[in-house]
Parts: sequence; structure tokens; C-alpha cells
Amino acid sequence: MITSTANQQIKRIALLNRKAKARYGQQVFVAEGMKMCLEAPKEQIQAMYVSESFLEDEGRRAEVSGYSYEVVSDAVFCAASDTETPQGILCLVRMPSYRLEDLMGGQPAGQAHLLIVEGIQDPGNLGTMIRTGEGAGVTGVIMDKSTVDIFHPKVIRATMGSIYRMPFYSASDLAGTVGQLKERGISLYAAHLAGDMAYDEPDYTGPVGFLVGNEGKGLSPQAAGLADAYVRIPMEGSVESLNAAVAAALLMYEANRQRR
Amino acid sequence: MITSTANQQIKRIALLNRKAKARYGQQVFVAEGMKMCLEAPKEQIQAMYVSESFLEDEGRRAEVSGYSYEVVSDAVFCAASDTETPQGILCLVRMPSYRLEDLMGGQPAGQAHLLIVEGIQDPGNLGTMIRTGEGAGVTGVIMDKSTVDIFHPKVIRATMGSIYRMPFYSASDLAGTVGQLKERGISLYAAHLAGDMAYDEPDYTGPVGFLVGNEGKGLSPQAAGLADAYVRIPMEGSVESLNAAVAAALLMYEANRQRR
Repeated sequence: MITSTANQQIKRIALLNRKAKARYGQQVFVAEGMKMCLEAPKEQIQAMYVSESFLEDEGRRAEVSGYSYEVVSDAVFCAASDTETPQGILCLVRMPSYRLEDLMGGQPAGQAHLLIVEGIQDPGNLGTMIRTGEGAGVTGVIMDKSTVDIFHPKVIRATMGSIYRMPFYSASDLAGTVGQLKERGISLYAAHLAGDMAYDEPDYTGPVGFLVGNEGKGLSPQAAGLADAYVRIPMEGSVESLNAAVAAALLMYEANRQRR
Repeated sequence: MITSTANQQIKRIALLNRKAKARYGQQVFVAEGMKMCLEAPKEQIQAMYVSESFLEDEGRRAEVSGYSYEVVSDAVFCAASDTETPQGILCLVRMPSYRLEDLMGGQPAGQAHLLIVEGIQDPGNLGTMIRTGEGAGVTGVIMDKSTVDIFHPKVIRATMGSIYRMPFYSASDLAGTVGQLKERGISLYAAHLAGDMAYDEPDYTGPVGFLVGNEGKGLSPQAAGLADAYVRIPMEGSVESLNAAVAAALLMYEANRQRR
């Protein structure tokens, strides 16, 4: 049993939770909690850690019986964990890697239903978008470089497991990536306050992508300019904007509704 | 200028941020940040506090020129604040109070578009629901007693100002309150995984209310049983449920879409 926070494995987990650079250097991220560990593809799990009191429960012991794991004292588990009230189980998962064509949902991009985000800062928002996206049948999520790291522990948790199933792509050059999408015949709609169409007016039954911007500022003019059209979510009252994850959900589910 | 955390006003703000009991005892809540302070109805503001460095900016000084406020040293402001990186402005706002009939959007309940939540635990989710609700034209939000306090500082911030405009009602007896809604001819739909209709099938152009439950457990059988019908949000992939604020947004905006 690991009983010291000075243990190299514990220090490694804490570092992976804190630093994106360490995550990418080692090509590994931390997934915490029962659901996140049990849904992780087994072949991607590099290590699993459980707390002493986690193992005291017979049901939980049975759940992890097929895994090899290290036992960690409760206090030390807390120190390694990113959560305030740890569930007592976490694992290190090898990063998946996708090419842009893996996000198309079938050849040649016939079913593509993409979410493209710029500058999302809140990890909970990005994770919720990925979770909602899977539910709405999104075929891939594209993030620009100014968006929070997808392997941030709070993003991972907010995906509720969708991180293991949703293809994603980090675009170092958003304009270039969007250009490739257009070459594939994908129509791009930007969520924008200046949209002259309501978000439920266009036909989304063909290959589509939705551009959603930063929580406070929305899309940059450069990113918005990449879209074929702006769409607006009607807002009553004195609301100036919607939460970014809510706006993305409305767009993705409108496409889902039309495709059903 | 207030320069000590032992100052009675500072201790009061910190207490109001931490304790619902103090908020209800004094009938006051804390609203923090520029937008939340400037959108507060002036007649409800009991006191305003700004930090020393807040006042150094000429533009911000001009924004608060119509208000009377106390200046607080930066370190002491931080101690009173609920946020990690305070904007340097907060105010104490008298709680509004609504009767159930204030939530109906016109007599006799003809336009009612209600969100009814049970057991929502995450303050960000409740605040986001209120913000989205205003955007979708919701006429009122009803919360059961197990839902997080609507005056929790994180709820207030997440509403982005909608707290000042959205009528709400805390139901000590949810079944009794729902009974009153039914007497007014309001149709009630529960967001439920066991729904046999997709959420976009019913006609929401008449008076409607949507029941949305706890983040992890959904609606209790008791609360779900109060609805006239269950509706289901279709989910692809392996998604078991959506974020509660996302689910509420899809329902509220579907009603908005039908009413447009």
C-alpha cells in the first residue's frame, strides 16, 4: 500500500492533474471516479489506484476485480486527487489520437455533424459539450488552441465518459482546418448574435458543423468569418447571451431533431 | 475605507455568502461583479462595496458614480468575496418575493411557461437554468425544498442577472403546488428516461410546465408521478443522461420554438 505523498507514483498523478505539459509529455491523462474508470477502454488504462476505504465495500471491490490496481491510504489518495470529495478510484489513461477524417462519421463526410469551438475557458462547459454532443449524435469535436485542454481533469469528469467515445481534433490552425471541412462539402454555421436566421431555420440534414465561441466574448471575427452563415438563438427578456454549453446543445440537438 | 477583516460589515458579507440561514434571516443576498451590481434594481440595493483598486479605473468609477458605496482595501475585499479573482465590486440586495400567481405570465395562466426543478444540487446548473429560462421566455421557476438555495452566491453569478427578472417560487410542498398548477389548466411534462414521447412531440403552445430532476438521480417517482406525461430527450451513443441544465434548456427552447 502507498502511504506517502512523497511516493513517485502519487507525485506523478498530482502532476498529471495539474500540468497539461506533463500530460502531453507522457501522453497520459487522469480519469477519476467509478464511472470514468469503468468506462475507460481497458487497453488504454496504464494504471489504476484505489483508496483503502474504497476497497472496504464489497460491491466496489467486485467492480474492480478484473483490474490490477495499487492501494493507496485515504489521506494520500486525497492528496493525489483533483476532487474535494474523492470517490477513491482513479486511473491513468493513454491519450487517444484521431485524424481529422475520423471525425466525419462515415465516408465521404455524408453524416458529418461537427462541433467546432473557439476559446472555451470553462472545463465544465467543454466537458458538457462533449457529453451533449455524443447524445445528439455529433461525429466529432474540433477545438482551437485557445480552448481549455481537453484532458484537464474537470473536462474529463464533465464528459461523464463521452471522452472515450467522441472523436476530437485540436486544430493548431483553425482557418486551415475549416478550409479542409469546406472541401469535404460540410456547411458551417456560426452561433452569433448578429445572425439573421434563427438557429432552427437552416436545413441541417446534410453534413454540418457548428462554430461556438468563448463564454464571454463569443466567436472572434476571424472564426465567425469562416462560417457559411450566422445563426442566432432567439432570446427573450434582457438576456444578452446564453451559456456556451447551452447554446451548443441547442444547435446540436436541432440538427438531431431534423435528422430523426 | 475598511481595512480590517474584523470590520462588522465585512464579517456580515462573508456570513451572507456562506450561510443560507443568515441570508433568509436578514432577507438579503450578495451579488458580486460589475454586471450583477449594475443590473440590480436600485431600490433593492441595501449597500455596495468596492475595492480600492476597482476605483483606480476611471471608467469603472464612472459606472458607480450614481451609487453610494463603501471602499474596502483589496486584501479585505478578497476575504469578503466568494470568488477567487474578485472584480472588486459587490452589493447586498434585498430578496424579492413572489406569489405563485406572479409566475403565470398573464391571467388566467394563458401564457404560463414554467420550469419546475427537484433536487438540483449544483449552483451553476440552477443559475444557468434561470438564465436560459429568461432567454426562452419562461414565466417562472419553481424549486422544491431539496434544491440548492437560489440565493447561493454561485447561483446568483450563474444567472448573469436573470435573477432580478425571473419570478420564482420555493415550494415547501411540491405536490400541493403542482396541484394548484393543474387547477389552472397547466399541462405538466416530466423529463424522464422512461418517456414514451420525444420531447419535441407534444404541443407546448398552451400553458405548460417542465419538471426536471436531480443531476444524478433524475426526478423522484413522487415528483415524476405529478406530471401529465413523460417526455424523453433522444440520446445516441452510450450517453445515459444529459446535464440537468442542458436537458432543461432543450425543453424550454422547444416550447419557445413552437410558440414563435
